[in-house]
Parts: sequence; structure tokens; C-alpha cells
Amino acid sequence: MHPSLLQDSVRGCPKEIPHNEKLLSLKYESLDYDNSENQLFLEEERRMSFLGFKCLEISRWVICGLIGFLTGLIACCIDIAVENLAGVKYYVVKQNIEKFTEVGGLSISLILWAVLNSAFVMVGAVIVAFFEPGAAGSGIPQIKCYLNGVKIPRVVRLKTLVVKVCGVICSVAGGLAVGKEGPMIHSGAVVAAGVSQGRSTSLKKDFKIFEYFRRDTEKRDFVSAGAAAGVSAAFGAPVGGVLFSLEEGASFWNQMLTWRIFFASMISTFTLNFFLSIYNNKPGDLSSPGLINFGRFESDVSVCLLLSSPKPCVISLSTVCLVLNPVFSVYRVYVHRPCLQVMEAMLVAPLGPDQSEDYPLQLFCADGEYNSMATAFFNTPERSVRSLFHNPPGSYNPLTLSLFTLTYFFLACWTYGLTVSAGVFIPSLLIGAAWGRLFGILLAVWAVPGKYALMGAAAQLGGIVRMTLSLTVIMVEATGNVTYGLPIMLVLLTAKIVGDYFVEGLYDIHIKLQSVPFLHLEAPATSHWLTAREVMGAPVTCFNRIEKVGTIVDVLSNTSTNHNGFPVVMPVAICGLILRSQLIVLLKHKVFVELARSRLTQRKLQLKDFRDAYPRFPPIQSIHVSQDERECMMDLTEFMNPTPYTVPQVYTKPCRPIGALCEAVENLPGTTHAEYTPPPPSVFVIH
Amino acid sequence: MHPSLLQDSVRGCPKEIPHNEKLLSLKYESLDYDNSENQLFLEEERRMSFLGFKCLEISRWVICGLIGFLTGLIACCIDIAVENLAGVKYYVVKQNIEKFTEVGGLSISLILWAVLNSAFVMVGAVIVAFFEPGAAGSGIPQIKCYLNGVKIPRVVRLKTLVVKVCGVICSVAGGLAVGKEGPMIHSGAVVAAGVSQGRSTSLKKDFKIFEYFRRDTEKRDFVSAGAAAGVSAAFGAPVGGVLFSLEEGASFWNQMLTWRIFFASMISTFTLNFFLSIYNNKPGDLSSPGLINFGRFESDVSVCLLLSSPKPCVISLSTVCLVLNPVFSVYRVYVHRPCLQVMEAMLVAPLGPDQSEDYPLQLFCADGEYNSMATAFFNTPERSVRSLFHNPPGSYNPLTLSLFTLTYFFLACWTYGLTVSAGVFIPSLLIGAAWGRLFGILLAVWAVPGKYALMGAAAQLGGIVRMTLSLTVIMVEATGNVTYGLPIMLVLLTAKIVGDYFVEGLYDIHIKLQSVPFLHLEAPATSHWLTAREVMGAPVTCFNRIEKVGTIVDVLSNTSTNHNGFPVVMPVAICGLILRSQLIVLLKHKVFVELARSRLTQRKLQLKDFRDAYPRFPPIQSIHVSQDERECMMDLTEFMNPTPYTVPQVYTKPCRPIGALCEAVENLPGTTHAEYTPPPPSVFVIH
Repeated sequence: MHPSLLQDSVRGCPKEIPHNEKLLSLKYESLDYDNSENQLFLEEERRMSFLGFKCLEISRWVICGLIGFLTGLIACCIDIAVENLAGVKYYVVKQNIEKFTEVGGLSISLILWAVLNSAFVMVGAVIVAFFEPGAAGSGIPQIKCYLNGVKIPRVVRLKTLVVKVCGVICSVAGGLAVGKEGPMIHSGAVVAAGVSQGRSTSLKKDFKIFEYFRRDTEKRDFVSAGAAAGVSAAFGAPVGGVLFSLEEGASFWNQMLTWRIFFASMISTFTLNFFLSIYNNKPGDLSSPGLINFGRFESDVSVCLLLSSPKPCVISLSTVCLVLNPVFSVYRVYVHRPCLQVMEAMLVAPLGPDQSEDYPLQLFCADGEYNSMATAFFNTPERSVRSLFHNPPGSYNPLTLSLFTLTYFFLACWTYGLTVSAGVFIPSLLIGAAWGRLFGILLAVWAVPGKYALMGAAAQLGGIVRMTLSLTVIMVEATGNVTYGLPIMLVLLTAKIVGDYFVEGLYDIHIKLQSVPFLHLEAPATSHWLTAREVMGAPVTCFNRIEKVGTIVDVLSNTSTNHNGFPVVMPVAICGLILRSQLIVLLKHKVFVELARSRLTQRKLQLKDFRDAYPRFPPIQSIHVSQDERECMMDLTEFMNPTPYTVPQVYTKPCRPIGALCEAVENLPGTTHAEYTPPPPSVFVIH
Repeated sequence: MHPSLLQDSVRGCPKEIPHNEKLLSLKYESLDYDNSENQLFLEEERRMSFLGFKCLEISRWVICGLIGFLTGLIACCIDIAVENLAGVKYYVVKQNIEKFTEVGGLSISLILWAVLNSAFVMVGAVIVAFFEPGAAGSGIPQIKCYLNGVKIPRVVRLKTLVVKVCGVICSVAGGLAVGKEGPMIHSGAVVAAGVSQGRSTSLKKDFKIFEYFRRDTEKRDFVSAGAAAGVSAAFGAPVGGVLFSLEEGASFWNQMLTWRIFFASMISTFTLNFFLSIYNNKPGDLSSPGLINFGRFESDVSVCLLLSSPKPCVISLSTVCLVLNPVFSVYRVYVHRPCLQVMEAMLVAPLGPDQSEDYPLQLFCADGEYNSMATAFFNTPERSVRSLFHNPPGSYNPLTLSLFTLTYFFLACWTYGLTVSAGVFIPSLLIGAAWGRLFGILLAVWAVPGKYALMGAAAQLGGIVRMTLSLTVIMVEATGNVTYGLPIMLVLLTAKIVGDYFVEGLYDIHIKLQSVPFLHLEAPATSHWLTAREVMGAPVTCFNRIEKVGTIVDVLSNTSTNHNGFPVVMPVAICGLILRSQLIVLLKHKVFVELARSRLTQRKLQLKDFRDAYPRFPPIQSIHVSQDERECMMDLTEFMNPTPYTVPQVYTKPCRPIGALCEAVENLPGTTHAEYTPPPPSVFVIH
């Protein structure tokens, strides 16, 4: 609609919702979640044959296969690298212990161990803090935002992927209380964003394939597939991966897309499984589908477990954790220099439990004996989780378990948010398993504590990440026993309800801390009668269908508004929507009416030119427009989206009698009674 | 838009797509997939407090719990009834065999057996054919259509449920080659539609609860939950149920809805499990989560199975089946009288394999011996499937298996589409398992034939119903082994691709046979440049904002158009959309402008009045409007939806020079060159 009309509407509107700009940052842009169906687009579609569409469809499947394969491969590399690095570390420390136990001091070994851990963590923290801060954390909040439609800068770049993979290897090998599962999801997403574009902007390498997919609508679909493939590789849960993508992100449900996502997930878990089986010298044995393996729960669930699941306890820990974590995050506002960040990470490192996959835990014990505290602390988290699930009743001392839970809990809170690449799944599972088992021991009359450990793990993780459906499926797939579905779901639902009562989920908290304008799936229940007019700003910045270049450059250069989509208007009404990125390309190619007249042979701009500039459109400042050119005109007709989403202005019965209305209108500056006619139903543009 | 404008647009449009009315039936109406956000609606929302919304949300969960519980209970009843009836039948036949084997003739026993089967099937066919023909078949195509947004008459009525349940008990007990799983999905959907409305229109009983949910938007959500609960009870696959609802039906993806659907599914499988455990005297043992139980596959999948899955064979049988079934369906056009339908069903009955759950199969064999043909034919289909999956290699003779496959295949084709309530899942699984095992035996060098039976069953079922994601999950949940996911998915994908190449899926074929205007998830790839103007009819039937009662009655009574939604126009543009059902209620309550003036005390019409009339609005013929009343006026402002979905008319550059255009306009009747001004961008209403 024309700005003047909107001004009228806004003026007529009694209440205005104030823009709370402190909560949301203006620096984030949205993905173009819908194709700009302009004339160029329609012409291209019209030129394409039925066979062309089939080829595109097949390319999509091929890309999804590739995404799955590469994600699986990355997971495999991470797993093998962590195992070998931790092995080397353990070997050095063990040699040292054997040497020094004789001469007396254990302290030297402990110091060596701390130094080694710190060294690993330092490497991990340095690359993250100095090279790519976007690779810190699990990356799940960023992917969640991306799938929600928010363009987070640098989140799907190759550099981020490299730093993320190296970082997670270092921090896990360095013995931090972190997991390698979360980062897999981010890695999968980056792989997807890269593969689907057929080029790397960072490496300046264009393979000239998959050019059709160089647009946000297609890219976001592949990124969902990549995230799903990541979950699938991390937990061996392909269905869980699909549901994760749906539950956490994808705003668009589409049957074909879901199948492709499922395909990518399946390929990913299979690739991981296959290569790990070769690495473990058991080629063809597909028994380790994910990075984490809960072991098989053979016995079925009984009603007792259902009734006595440790639901109420969910309250305690997950909430405290979520309250504590932002506290750490807030204090981290003061740790904003990379050096400080690296130092903090190194400080936490020696506190963490050690990683010692595949090495016996017999420190200072006689043969056949066994130190339960050492087991809990000096084992890999995955292995500890598995022990807590499956060890026979009586393996753990309740006091040890309580102590372990508390220590590890505090460490995990501190660690998540450090400037290292690290996931929160494994620490949550471990804490949950520990107090779940503790709960099971206290209820020992009834049941196997291992099952309670599983329920506790589910509850803790659910309380932290607040997923329900996808997490149930992930847990069921990881345990390999379908009958645990119902109790796990009940536990997760309870965790979610109780948790939501106190505080938001961890990812949502981190999204809020970054001020991302995240759109939740449902609007608040009481907002149904809000109208577009009440939330929109005025006046609307818009262009005429044939607009002066100078005006366009000025509007684009205006840093105070920084809009990315502009309604195109004709004298009476809206006729389209044009994006900043499109205008930039038009200015760069100097598509001016005057030039077209003088140079009749000039090549017509095609969709390909827009695709080639995607996704890093240059800023307006880098485009030189001469003073003469500023006087030229640009015809936006061909390039604008002629059918943007609009909301009609509601026609309502005037509540006040007509007389009063006219009186009110008369008092408006610049109108007289005679001049006033009710405005025709006008429209608001949604972008 | 105003009709005259539309006429102009249509006249200006060079090509028109002819309406192929032979393919689609006009008798189906669409569900109102969007709330009519009129003034009454907004006022009600505004009156509602935050607590009110919370209560609604809790009610939704309660309803979903109830849906799950009742669906599980129904599944339990069906299971127990079938088992007992089949038991009685078997007992009588066995007594007879023992009596007559001595005196010589087996033929008498065979005749008795045929008579018993025919009797059961007759009862099943009679109730379906004479009382509720809508209960025939599995009901899945109907539910698919309902979830797609097509209002199929009588599909979610109580009577349909009762007939369906009794019918399926009779046909399964009568030994037809049918399963009891498909009808569970329909039953769940009916339960959901009933429970969520808090009343039964058939029983004329209104519980005065859940009144808020008496609208299509809410009802369809609960029906998805019901369908999911049905799948969950049938296969013990709660996640599969959720995915079924999503894949086959729900056009709207919503996180909260998905969780509620999941909850209903979980409750459903748990209820079934719990009551069956009590019935089997093992209370608390939750090991039979579904009607069907594949038994546990313990061993993991190896790469060999992946590589040698019987994918290519998928082509053969499922396709032949789908070609054969429509042949039967077409011939059934001639069997349209209920008596003939019952007779046909009775004719098929004695051909079917027998049901003899829990009774030993030792007919004419010495102790310890065992007749494989008898096992295949005289066992319940579920038990046969399980035997085919789990019996050790060498249990079956390839010749027997081939013969069994062919016979059963032909029977299943004939049976599906008989006038009985019956599902296609079990017969498909059985046929697939048989030829899968056959395939496994022929490849005996490599692997366990039982695994091939599972793959064959998946392939056959996938080829017939063409589900991918949900069926993979259902199969994985039913086998209880996650590692089978990848091979099952590959088999299902192959089945789908190969099947789609030849013919549509069974459900889609049946939907087409019923001429339902089913909207597929994706428009054909080459239809992107079709505009609304090219597919819409003209002139548009529409009303003025204040319209004469006579006009409204005449338009509603016009049987040749039978529209259900009407644009409301002001002189210059569209201002809303009003539905036939709303107009009927307005006419019934005589909401006329003149009457409102004379009777100032008249109660204002509220949303409740519309809800009370839902869902069976009376036909226009039953509403008496006197000659005087025909002259009254109706004000539609409060009741119309002021923000219907509209598509703006695309502004395109005129392709012909302006001169030619003006010339063309001049030649139009009633316009002169001077009068002509280009029409403002106008809108099309979508309903």
C-alpha cells in the first residue's frame, strides 16, 4: 500500500504495540523463505521441460545421498581421531605413573595429566577463539535459527566446519565434560549447505553443478537434511534425525522433502557404521550405527517402571542447570577477549574427567578389584553412561553417585558455553543416568536401577533441550528397544512441562542471549486479534514501479532502517515486492532504462546473474553509481515479485457514529469534511 | 473482486483450461480448513482470558488421551472377539472331524467348515451392505481424503464405527484373506471425531463439553490423532502412527499437534497392551503392544542383506496386484445391489484360509509331524507371517510356498473391495513374506531366509500402499530391531519408485474410483505459471455486504452450482467471504435487518449458535422463507470472514503495444476509448 494510506491507517488505530528493540537484534536478516516468482523466474520455469524437472528431482536425491555420506564420514573421522588422541594421552600418563609410583609422587603424574589436557583444550580453544568464533558451542542454537529462517552470519561456512571438527576433537580428547554429538548436527548442516551449492565461496571454487539450487528456498531444505544426517550419525537414529529436523526447525512440511531427509539420514548412519566396522576390523558388521551406543536393553518394560519413573525429580536438576548456565553466560560477557576465552577453557580442562577409551581402569587397585569413583571419573562419558545403564545392581555406592552427579553437573554447566566446540548431549545423559540410577537404588525394592538410569538420562536431557517427539525416538533408536517408548515419552513430557514452568530450554536461552529474532511455531494464544496495522512501522519505505536510481541508492544506503524487502507501488496500490539483494544485482549490472534504450544489444539480465551473486551479495557501499547514473530510471517490473503475501485491511463496522468519525477526520491536519472519503480496503505486505 | 472485473480478466486471458468434470465428483465438499475469523470469532477470542486458553489446551490433551484409550480398548475388543469366535468355530469343526473320520467322509467336515465361514462372512457383509456401506473396506482411503480436507459423507459417524467393528470381527473370524489392522485406523478416526465433539448427533446426546472444538479446524486435528492412535494400536507403533498421520494426511504441520498425536498414540498402544496382558493372565507384562506382533528379530543386519535385498522382485507382484484390484473394482460396478454384494462375499468366504488361533495344527498327522501346506493355509495370517519370519531354514518347501503365494495373492486381490470391513495390511504382509522367503531360499548360500521374508513383506506392503517413511518406522517398531531400518527403507523406496512407474498406490486408485477431488501434496512440476484466472470459473457468484434475503435463498437453492463459499463484495472490491453453512444458520435464525429494528430485544446471534448447528447444517430446502421475508435485507458484515486468502492479479508488462490494447478495448461492448482506464490490480478469492 501507499505510505500515505498506511499513515492514515496507523493514525486511525488507537493502540500501538511498542517495538521492544532491546530484546531483538536488527543485525539479523531473514532467509528468503519463498521464491520470488517474478517474470524471470516464470520464464525460466516455462522454458524447462518435464525432463528438466525430473533431472532436478534426481539431483536433489543425489545431493542428499552425498550429504549423508560426507556427514557419516566426518563423524567417523571425529570418532577415530578422538580415540587415537585419547589413547596417546593415556599411554603417556600411564608410562609416567609406572615410572613415578616407585619413586613416590603421584602428584607429578597428575600435573602431567593436567598439562596434557590443557594443551589439547588450548589448541581447541585457540582455533575457535581466533579463527572462527562461530564454531563455539554445539551449534544447535544456530542451526535452529537457520532452519527457523534467520540468516546467522558465517554459520554454514567451510571454515566453520573445519574449525568445528578440529575443535571438537581437541576438546573431547582434552577431557572436557562435553560430547561430540551436538557438533555433528552443525557439521551436517554445513556439509549440506556446501554440497548443495556445488561451489565453495571460501575456496573460490565453482564446480558449475547444482546451479539451480543457489537460492535460499532450496538451500534451507538441504540444510534440514544435513542436520538430520548429523543427528543420525551422532545417535544412530535416522528417524530421530528426521523428527529433529521437523521439530526443531523446518517451518515447511513437505512429503518429498521428508523422504529425502530420511534418505540422507539413513546413508549417514550407514556410512558411519560401515567405515567404523572396517576400522574395527569387523567389516560388514553393522552394529555401531552411531557415535554413541547405549548398548542393547533386552528386557521389556513393565508397568512398575511406568508408574515409578523418576518424573518428579526432573524438576530439580535440569532447572538448576538452566538457571546456572545463563549465570555463566552472563559472566562470560566479561570474558570477551579471545585470550581470556582460551585461558578460561584451559582452566576448566584439568577439572574434567579423563578420556581413556579401551584402556583398563585398574589404577592402584589389585587385580579384580575396582574403584567405582575412578570408573565414574576416569572413563569416557559414553562408557560411563553405558555402565550406569547396564551394570548389575550393587555396582555403585549411592554416596559416590551423589558426589559424582554434583561435581559433573557443575562442570557441565561451566563447560557449555566455553569458547570450544562441544555438545551438551553426553554430559546431560551422564548426569541424568547418574541420578536416575541413584533414584533406582533408593527404590531398590522394585526394579533394576539400570532402567532408572535410562529414564534419568532421558529426563535430564529432555529438561535441558526440551525436545519431546524427536528425543523419544532418538532414545528409543539408541537403546534399540521399542517398548521403552512410552515411559521415555512420559518422562520427557513431564520434563518439558515442569521445565517450561520455570525457564526456557537451553537452546532457546542461548538464542535469546544472542538477540536472534526467532519466530516460535505458535503465536501467543491471546494475540489472535492483533492486526498487521498494529505491529507495522510507518511510513513504509517503498519504490515506484519505475524508480530513480538515486532514490534507490539512497534508500539502500540508509543504515538506520536497513530494510531488505521493499513494496513496489503504483499510484493506487501495491503491485509487487523487491528485495535488497535483487536491487544490488540490478545496480551492479546497471539495468537502467536509459542505457537499455541506447544499447539495444545489451544482454538481458537472467536469473543466472542473481544466482551467481548468491549468497554473498556485495554491500551497497561497494557499488559505484555516478552522478549521471543517479538521474537514470530503473524499471522494476520484471524483477519484483508481483504476488507477495498480503493481508487485506479488515472492513469493520464503525463503532462510533459516522458523525463523530467525520468530526475526528475533520480535525486531522490537511483534510476537510468534503475531501474525506473512506479509504478503500488496502493491503499490508508481508515479507 | 467484482464479477464484472473477473469477466474482463477472463475475457482478456487467451487460454482456458477445460474443467474435466468426469474425473472429479462435485458431490464432495471441502472441510473448512481455516477458522472464519469474523467479528463474532474475534469478540469471543477477546473475551477469553489467558486461563481460558490454558484450559482449552489442557482439554485438547485430555481429549487426545481419551481418544488413545478408547481406540486401544476397541482394538482389544476386536482382538478378543476374533480369537473367541475363531476358537468356537475351530472347536465345532474339530469335533465334527473326530466324529466323521471314523465313518469315512472328510467332505462333510469341509462343508461344515465352509458353511460356518460363510455364515460369519454373511453377517459381516449384511450389516455393511444394508446398514452402512461406508464401513466397507479398510477405510484408509476415506480417512486419507478426510485428512486431505475432503468431507466424505458419513465417514466419521458412530454407526459407521459400530458396523465397522462388528464387520471386521465377522470377516476375520469368517476366515477371509483380510486383516484387522486397516479398520483400526478408521475406527480411531471415528472415535476421535466423536469424543472431540462432546456429543453424538446420532444418539441425540449432548454432553455439553468440548463445545469450543465444534468446528472443522479442530475436528480434523483430533481425527489425525485418532488415525495415529489406530495405527499405533494395530502395529504397536506409536511413532509410526504419528508419521502415518503426517505422511498420509495432515496438511498442516504443527509442533503442539504432533505432540498430542504422539500422546494419543502412546496411550493407545499402552491401553491395548495393558488390557491384553490382563486377558492373557499376565498383568503388567507389556510385551504385545499391537494387534500384530512380528516377534523379535534378534540378530543384526549385515551388509550382505543390504546388497541382496529382493528389490527387483518388487516389480512383479505388487504391480500385478494393483492392476488386478481395479479390474475387480470395475467388475464390481455391476454388483451394486446389497443382496448381490452379500452373496459375493459369501462366495469368497469358503475359499479363504482358516483362522485357528491357539489351536494345534495336527490334522491327520502323527504326533511331532507337521503339514507345511496346512500350516500355511489353516493358520491365522498373523501366525503365518510370524512363522515365515522366524522358522529355521528348511521349514518350507519352495513349491508349497510358490503355490501358497499365488493362491493367497489371487484371493487377497478379490477380497479387498468386497462389501466387508477388512484391511489389506495383513494379506500383503503374508504374500510378501511368502515370496520373500522363497527368494531367500533360492539365495540360500548367503543368508537366513526369515530376513528375506521380512524384506519381502515390507516390499509387498510398500508396493501396495506406497508409504515410505511411516511404513519403515511401523515395520521397525513391529520388529523391534532398529538396525533393520536401512534395508527396509531401501526396499520401500524401490517399491515406491518401481510401483509409481506403473500405476498409483491402492488407496489412490480407490480414491480415484470414488471421484474424490483429492489434492496431492505437490502440484505438477510444470504448472508453476498457471494463474488463478486460468482455472477459475466466471461469472463469480457473490453477494453484496447487505443483501436481499430472496437473492441469497435463490443462490443457495441453485442446484446447478452448489457453491459453499461466496465472496462478499462492496462496489469497488472484495470485502469478505461467507460460507453456505453460515448463511443457512442466519436464515434459520432470521437475522434480517428489518427484524432487528423492530425487535430491539432480540438476542444477538453468537458463535455458539453456529457451533450448535455444526456439523449437520440443514439443507436450504428445509428452511421456510416467506414472500415478505424475501424482501428483507441481511447484513453479512459481522459474519463474513473479512480476511479470506486472496491472490493478487499479476501486473505484467503489456505484451502488445498500448495502441493495439486500446483498440481491443474499444471493440468491447459498452466501453469507449475515453472511458477505458486500466483496471486496478484486483484479487481472486481462494476458498
